Amino acid sequence: MPDEAFVLFMPSGRRGRFPVGTPLLQAARSLGVDVDSVCGGRALCGRCQILLCEGEFAKHGISSTTASLAPQSDDERRFVAQGGYLAPGRRLACSALVRGDVVIDVPPDSQVHRQVVRKRAEVHDIELDPAIRLYYIEVQQPDMHDPAGDLRRVLEALEFEWGLSDLDGCDLYVLTRLQKTLREANWCLTAAVYEGRRIVAVWPGLRDRVYGLALDLGSTTIAAHLCDLSTGDVVAAGGAMNPQIRFGEDLMSRVSYVMMNPGGDAEMTRAVRGAINALAAEVTAQAGIDLVDVLEVTLVGNPVMHHLLLGVDPVELGGAPFALATDCALRLSASELDLTLNPGARAYVLPCIAGHVGADMAGVVLSEQPHLTDAMTLVVDVGTNAEIVLGNRQRLVACSSPTGPAFEGAQISGGQRAAPGAIERVRIDPNTLEPRFKIIGCEHWSDEPDFESAISATGVSGICGSGIIEVIAEMYLAGIIRSDGVIDGSLASRNARIIEDGRTFAYSLYADTADIRITQNDVRAIQLAKAALYAGVRLLMDRLRIDAVDRIRLAGAFGSHIDVKYAMVLGLIPDCDLNYVTSAGNAAGTGARITLLDRRARDEIEAVVRRIEKVETALEARFQAHFVEAMAIPHKSASFEHLARAVPLPAPSLAAAATPATTGRRRRPRRA
Amino acid sequence: MPDEAFVLFMPSGRRGRFPVGTPLLQAARSLGVDVDSVCGGRALCGRCQILLCEGEFAKHGISSTTASLAPQSDDERRFVAQGGYLAPGRRLACSALVRGDVVIDVPPDSQVHRQVVRKRAEVHDIELDPAIRLYYIEVQQPDMHDPAGDLRRVLEALEFEWGLSDLDGCDLYVLTRLQKTLREANWCLTAAVYEGRRIVAVWPGLRDRVYGLALDLGSTTIAAHLCDLSTGDVVAAGGAMNPQIRFGEDLMSRVSYVMMNPGGDAEMTRAVRGAINALAAEVTAQAGIDLVDVLEVTLVGNPVMHHLLLGVDPVELGGAPFALATDCALRLSASELDLTLNPGARAYVLPCIAGHVGADMAGVVLSEQPHLTDAMTLVVDVGTNAEIVLGNRQRLVACSSPTGPAFEGAQISGGQRAAPGAIERVRIDPNTLEPRFKIIGCEHWSDEPDFESAISATGVSGICGSGIIEVIAEMYLAGIIRSDGVIDGSLASRNARIIEDGRTFAYSLYADTADIRITQNDVRAIQLAKAALYAGVRLLMDRLRIDAVDRIRLAGAFGSHIDVKYAMVLGLIPDCDLNYVTSAGNAAGTGARITLLDRRARDEIEAVVRRIEKVETALEARFQAHFVEAMAIPHKSASFEHLARAVPLPAPSLAAAATPATTGRRRRPRRA
Repeated sequence: MPDEAFVLFMPSGRRGRFPVGTPLLQAARSLGVDVDSVCGGRALCGRCQILLCEGEFAKHGISSTTASLAPQSDDERRFVAQGGYLAPGRRLACSALVRGDVVIDVPPDSQVHRQVVRKRAEVHDIELDPAIRLYYIEVQQPDMHDPAGDLRRVLEALEFEWGLSDLDGCDLYVLTRLQKTLREANWCLTAAVYEGRRIVAVWPGLRDRVYGLALDLGSTTIAAHLCDLSTGDVVAAGGAMNPQIRFGEDLMSRVSYVMMNPGGDAEMTRAVRGAINALAAEVTAQAGIDLVDVLEVTLVGNPVMHHLLLGVDPVELGGAPFALATDCALRLSASELDLTLNPGARAYVLPCIAGHVGADMAGVVLSEQPHLTDAMTLVVDVGTNAEIVLGNRQRLVACSSPTGPAFEGAQISGGQRAAPGAIERVRIDPNTLEPRFKIIGCEHWSDEPDFESAISATGVSGICGSGIIEVIAEMYLAGIIRSDGVIDGSLASRNARIIEDGRTFAYSLYADTADIRITQNDVRAIQLAKAALYAGVRLLMDRLRIDAVDRIRLAGAFGSHIDVKYAMVLGLIPDCDLNYVTSAGNAAGTGARITLLDRRARDEIEAVVRRIEKVETALEARFQAHFVEAMAIPHKSASFEHLARAVPLPAPSLAAAATPATTGRRRRPRRA
Repeated sequence: MPDEAFVLFMPSGRRGRFPVGTPLLQAARSLGVDVDSVCGGRALCGRCQILLCEGEFAKHGISSTTASLAPQSDDERRFVAQGGYLAPGRRLACSALVRGDVVIDVPPDSQVHRQVVRKRAEVHDIELDPAIRLYYIEVQQPDMHDPAGDLRRVLEALEFEWGLSDLDGCDLYVLTRLQKTLREANWCLTAAVYEGRRIVAVWPGLRDRVYGLALDLGSTTIAAHLCDLSTGDVVAAGGAMNPQIRFGEDLMSRVSYVMMNPGGDAEMTRAVRGAINALAAEVTAQAGIDLVDVLEVTLVGNPVMHHLLLGVDPVELGGAPFALATDCALRLSASELDLTLNPGARAYVLPCIAGHVGADMAGVVLSEQPHLTDAMTLVVDVGTNAEIVLGNRQRLVACSSPTGPAFEGAQISGGQRAAPGAIERVRIDPNTLEPRFKIIGCEHWSDEPDFESAISATGVSGICGSGIIEVIAEMYLAGIIRSDGVIDGSLASRNARIIEDGRTFAYSLYADTADIRITQNDVRAIQLAKAALYAGVRLLMDRLRIDAVDRIRLAGAFGSHIDVKYAMVLGLIPDCDLNYVTSAGNAAGTGARITLLDRRARDEIEAVVRRIEKVETALEARFQAHFVEAMAIPHKSASFEHLARAVPLPAPSLAAAATPATTGRRRRPRRA
């Protein structure tokens, strides 16, 4: 047997020669190969599992006859005997000794910086690199000859075993527990280290799992994703109503509440923090873990939610110049936010972009990555305000536009929040002008036989945001609404659903358990909202001197529910290949999750937010012009190249539309 | 008038040519001359006062005929009109414009890094460089064109106006107050910045005074010095009993209390923190300021006090190997210690040296500076244990020695704590064997006519530590005690004060309102204590291979009260020129004050503590031998060169003393 052997690690391709008897983990480390380990090579944690590749590797100069590792060690047998899981064919790198030339496969789940798979094809997977990491150490016992304090010996072990040379100590809470913890498990201890710099928690013996919580603070709901920080897996998710709703349905009414009620901001701060604690308790229970197992929380929210979370009076956000208290990201102790997680838990709050473009939009940007693509990308998050980001690798611009709450069903005669019983889909037969629809919570369309019985529980209670969009777009496509938004009263003779409503007309969508009609005011409210949204988008396009975008991402609940075709018919968004107009889902929440799992993403989004150019719509003379133009249905200033291909537009509309702009800038979007 | 003028700053001697019309502050800054300013040159704070030197400066090439500054400016007149104090002949550097060649004196109180004068000649003054500094800024107002958050604009102003480029943001509490503070004084604000990195407090407009508290946590008393961080002056001082006394008089009984009572450590932590808060309230009230004006606190204490302050169970300090939880310094928020000062206040806790050598001794070392001198320096702090440091610039060693509480008057038949009524000075006539004494709280000796009436309030209640030392030393000098410590019963015939006491004899010092006699057991207790102290010192001398020391500093209350001559007669300390055996006063508290006023002293003491070699007396075989030898009075192993010159030693003692060691290493101590 030769004294040295050749070891090749896949997939990195790193290779070297090592003395026979070298543990593979040691070989991997000396080559800088990414192999995970919490226990530091003591065959306790089972993280360093690798696979000996079979086959001929002659091209690497490896003779298959000599390829081998020493047989399973006592340590590996003990690991399995004590309930550790060793996948078939796998070995623990820390205990498998090199005996001959070998090719070793490091599977993804044994890599520290493994990829966390995201479901959508168009976005990068998340690189796992959490701010909190666990390190198992065996600490030298104190003796009378060495009076170094226990903490110093812990720091020395972390440096010696793990190379953590930048540690600046531990939290006071950890110090108060350190001596008992060390003695409880015979000087073996697992330390949770934050950003490679500070010990924030300790446990006796080996601890190989901790968790983090990604939170999206919406005006209406709070969404939580509980993640295993060692795998990146979402182990539980949940949502809760934002209890601030009792102080005001929308953000501006909450700001008004503070203006009218001294101390109202503190009430709302307490309310949202309490709701987060309740939600944290719920998702940890769901995952079967304790609140103290949660070591980090990351948070996104619009500016008002962001400020109220932090305990900052949001009153400055209620009027010009809409000054944020801070546009920096925040790294805090979770306890500073009154969050009852592990006492050492940290909180990372993403940066707000501008007074009306919040940390939630920063999360959306991080998730959607317009800054990493050449494709000219429009990202829209519609709430009470529309928050809009446009751009690509070269340049990003952002604004918010005052759409008002019409898209959420507010200020609409039959409108309601998206909830069971709300109409969410509508089709109108252009010949008969008869509608059919679907409600939330029911599989059947209204013209299907089982509909009536299926909805007996909820009834039909109103129409939600996506339903409004569809019904107005369908009314337009059926010719009930003209391009200028007027409901055509002359059609009353063709179908009794077109009814007089004062001096205008309305369309009766449903009249049974509820009376749901689309009035002229409703159409106007949607026209105003969509004109505001479109004018904001247009302003950003002007800023970038472009006439078309390559892809459009619609974030948030609104973006998830609307049919993009109808959004384009109404003219909410500029013309774009419909294949590249998609929902981004809860992209804000995903952004929070990315920063939770990959701490480098924090620097990334902070840098991106700094370079986003902020456009204030109120200061832009062209906003008003765009707004007026965009009142028409679809609207007057865009090409209909893609829309016309997707929808049979009524003849008068095309005629009414202004001269179609040529799409000056047009490029196939690349997959980001 | 020439276009440029020559400016020479004294005492730095820095010089340069500047355009006529340049403000002197600007000239000073460009030359790196140390001139203080909080307001940044706006003639608000009055810190930058300078003096135009009169006279001939031909040797500097300055013609006195052209020497001039522009006349007093409107800003200076306004400063005075608004109540600012401008000393006679002084100008504000920020407002005084160069008109011709000038020599400018920057007085010490206008320097940032001024010296804080210490009373004792043998120590350095303190260089003023507090961790908390104030900066006045005028912040750019937000407008719709610039959506940067308020915090960012504050950070930018601090960088632009003051060059603070390493700021990492502000405390959350500051963020919650920032917007109101900015708007309250029209975008003018003073920020308190900690270590040049973090904003910890803000005030509207100009604020030019903040305070810090230096605390010495003793087992019996807590001492506080409240300092003005801009001048270094002690503006108030106070002391309080340590309320932990109710859990145990001495440290080991407090550790026992914790062992017997689960949660006892938390009780004691609450008690000491509460006492600090009460004391802080007292000294701030005394100085006429508020608790929120206190921005920093620095703390020293012995290891048990140190741990209990931090909330660390001190039980490990109660038994071998006496492991400290940490031997590192701590930088905390004062609120982590439940201290109710400014919400942004910081706490700095000096490092402990070893399990029995505490942060108080680190304070003593910082104050006494053995590490900065060539003189071989012995520093002793006597409490229940004696903490001992020996060495000089080259090398420092430390140990603690179990003296027990005899030196504090405990375990002595008539002993008591140092308090009014306690005997503190004793003289015995060697011919008559009659004593005279003084008590604490009375000017008169007991043989003076006014003594009886003067003590009517307190009476004579007992004898304190310094009294014990003196009476036993005087008994020895009068021949009542032999060198082996036995009270000579044969003298009973000469004076009735020598009385039988069981099988031994005692000396009746006082028998009226109390019966105070010095028993054979008392002498033995002091012999044991002094032998322990001396053996510890001797062990350190062995380690450094020296036979004599150049100077001795006695720290703490004990050191302040004993007459060093008697300490040497009894053999508490090695022989040394009595001129160089002095009290260090409350050196631990001074150490805390130094770290409060000069943040570089923190790095200094941390580095020194790291390199102090710790000696564990229990592990040293020679300790026992030294101990036995040191039981004799004076003791057997030292030279009496200096002692014999100071005191007429009885003939038998000198004979009983061992061969005098030659003073191998002897050097005149230099002033440190």
